[in-house]
Amino acid sequence: MSLLTSVDTCPSRVDDFRVLLDEALHDFLRAREDLAPELAGELRQLILAGGKRIRPTFAWWGWRAAGGQAQADAVVRALVALEMLQCCALVHDDVMDRSKTRRGRPSVHESFAARHRHERWAASARQYGDSAAILVGDLALAWADDALVTAGLPADALGRAWPPWQAMRTEMITGQHLDLLAVARREESLEHAVRVAALKTAAYTVERPLHLGAALAGADDDVVRCLRGYGHDIGVAFQLRDDLIGVFGDSSVTGKPVGEDLREGKRTPLMAIALSLAHGKPAAQRLLRRCLEGSAIGERTVDDVRALLVELGAVAAVEKHIGALASSGLAALDRAVIDDGARHELMRLASRAVARTT
Amino acid sequence: MSLLTSVDTCPSRVDDFRVLLDEALHDFLRAREDLAPELAGELRQLILAGGKRIRPTFAWWGWRAAGGQAQADAVVRALVALEMLQCCALVHDDVMDRSKTRRGRPSVHESFAARHRHERWAASARQYGDSAAILVGDLALAWADDALVTAGLPADALGRAWPPWQAMRTEMITGQHLDLLAVARREESLEHAVRVAALKTAAYTVERPLHLGAALAGADDDVVRCLRGYGHDIGVAFQLRDDLIGVFGDSSVTGKPVGEDLREGKRTPLMAIALSLAHGKPAAQRLLRRCLEGSAIGERTVDDVRALLVELGAVAAVEKHIGALASSGLAALDRAVIDDGARHELMRLASRAVARTT
Repeated sequence: MSLLTSVDTCPSRVDDFRVLLDEALHDFLRAREDLAPELAGELRQLILAGGKRIRPTFAWWGWRAAGGQAQADAVVRALVALEMLQCCALVHDDVMDRSKTRRGRPSVHESFAARHRHERWAASARQYGDSAAILVGDLALAWADDALVTAGLPADALGRAWPPWQAMRTEMITGQHLDLLAVARREESLEHAVRVAALKTAAYTVERPLHLGAALAGADDDVVRCLRGYGHDIGVAFQLRDDLIGVFGDSSVTGKPVGEDLREGKRTPLMAIALSLAHGKPAAQRLLRRCLEGSAIGERTVDDVRALLVELGAVAAVEKHIGALASSGLAALDRAVIDDGARHELMRLASRAVARTT
Repeated sequence: MSLLTSVDTCPSRVDDFRVLLDEALHDFLRAREDLAPELAGELRQLILAGGKRIRPTFAWWGWRAAGGQAQADAVVRALVALEMLQCCALVHDDVMDRSKTRRGRPSVHESFAARHRHERWAASARQYGDSAAILVGDLALAWADDALVTAGLPADALGRAWPPWQAMRTEMITGQHLDLLAVARREESLEHAVRVAALKTAAYTVERPLHLGAALAGADDDVVRCLRGYGHDIGVAFQLRDDLIGVFGDSSVTGKPVGEDLREGKRTPLMAIALSLAHGKPAAQRLLRRCLEGSAIGERTVDDVRALLVELGAVAAVEKHIGALASSGLAALDRAVIDDGARHELMRLASRAVARTT
């Protein structure tokens, strides 16, 4: 982990991009606010309520790493696509998981259902809420493509960006489906959990955004390979950290209910490791399986499972894995022939992604 | 209606396009079958199960009308996008409406739920089915854009196609939401019902596909205006015919349950007209409102409502409206400075769209 902590950071840069991106996001939504006012209103509120903008940020530094400089405005506008795609993923994910909150607010389907109840409309509030949220997600997905195509990129840059963009969308959707299947099939293997993490998060959150950014800048194959290697490792580490936060995170910081992942029975690498470490310990296995089967568990049981995950050594094993991935990811970054300022920022981003608490 | 029936038709041409399109659809799906096998498998089955390919067909003749000739292969590949978009609309619509069948087969969410039950998987079969169907629709929507962008169109043609494509997607989604709101708010006005039909069907099914095709061929503003005028009128007429089929259609031909629209309480122009004609007739109003409130009604009640719609003169009024729209649409087509072979096919398509029984 020494590489991560020894970086001399320069916070203004990533934050500068964030300001540009937020302006572009607002401009994009403002130009469309008359098209679908109610649905777009929910999108705007979701975006305003927070979010780390992690995908556009990785894409931006992928672009800078590969020497991108000219037409930065068009690139920023194009990266709005990644945030819109993420809105689709969040809104549909919340419908699928029946999540009640998102970013400290009611989730989109809950918000529509609440309006239905408040107005005493006809038929089922839940069905209306779910349906409207499906449409909000569809709108976000369609608008994601609009953002990329209408950003004003040169035709050749758009053509280079499409293969990673195409792959990213399909991988995200496939990863979500594998996640559903893991619950349905009671998957317990570490391999399966890591595969989901690699598709759903590594590819979608880090590797493909970097690939997209590098492609926009016309990067050669070597640069793309090194950035994707870094992206894969940091992406899986990011998901492993996410899983720890989902279990141990402070709900006042994360904006999510305490121990949400445990209550939802998420089949994470953390739980797969814990199960294998619980071999020969029937009581521990029973407790873990109660979570994985999505039984309604109380706050006390959440505390018990947390303690068990530590005692079994599962948390330490995941932390060790995060550390190893961070090292190998940074080694790939180190080998890449890229812009040094961007390398510096990507090291900093890796450090944030794997060591964060929210 | 004389214009419609006097057309000397040449069936081989539209059917020739249909063959080319189906080949392109299969090629597109085959090239992607390894990417998301289970989700894409459901898409393939939905496409193989039928469908009139009406949107790509209108787009093709819009392209031909505006003088399109070169690079026809790329245009056919691009129009796969319209069929993929329609798959998204159907799959998500069936989740929202809780429809059990589509094209004579189980709807996608039912098919996934049945597999869940058959395999005795964990947790809720309905939730799994709905979730997987949401993902299938998302995949179809993302792949629709992929089909258009990767078709091999020249960059300027793609640039011209994007504004109508962008508008079509947003209009389709907004129209779906207005449809949900009509049920929720118990809308009874003819104006609202016609507005939904204009957005959901006219724009999405006829007007924008024609616009997209014409834009691909580099049509001038006059041609686009005439084709869109034709498309709007024929599109609304198409929806009015669809509403009549939804109530009076033969289920062995349509592949949908008898009187499905009545059972679902669809707020169509037909029902709005019937309600206004039932003014001062409390028993008739009560029967119509029972349908509109989505009460579970039996086959006998369906028969009663059908008879009532005829007696009130609502069916005759809708038929008259269809005739007037067909005439004004064909008059717009007549004014257009376009290829005469394409004009001929568009007259034939209008006739099919407004006089069909399935």
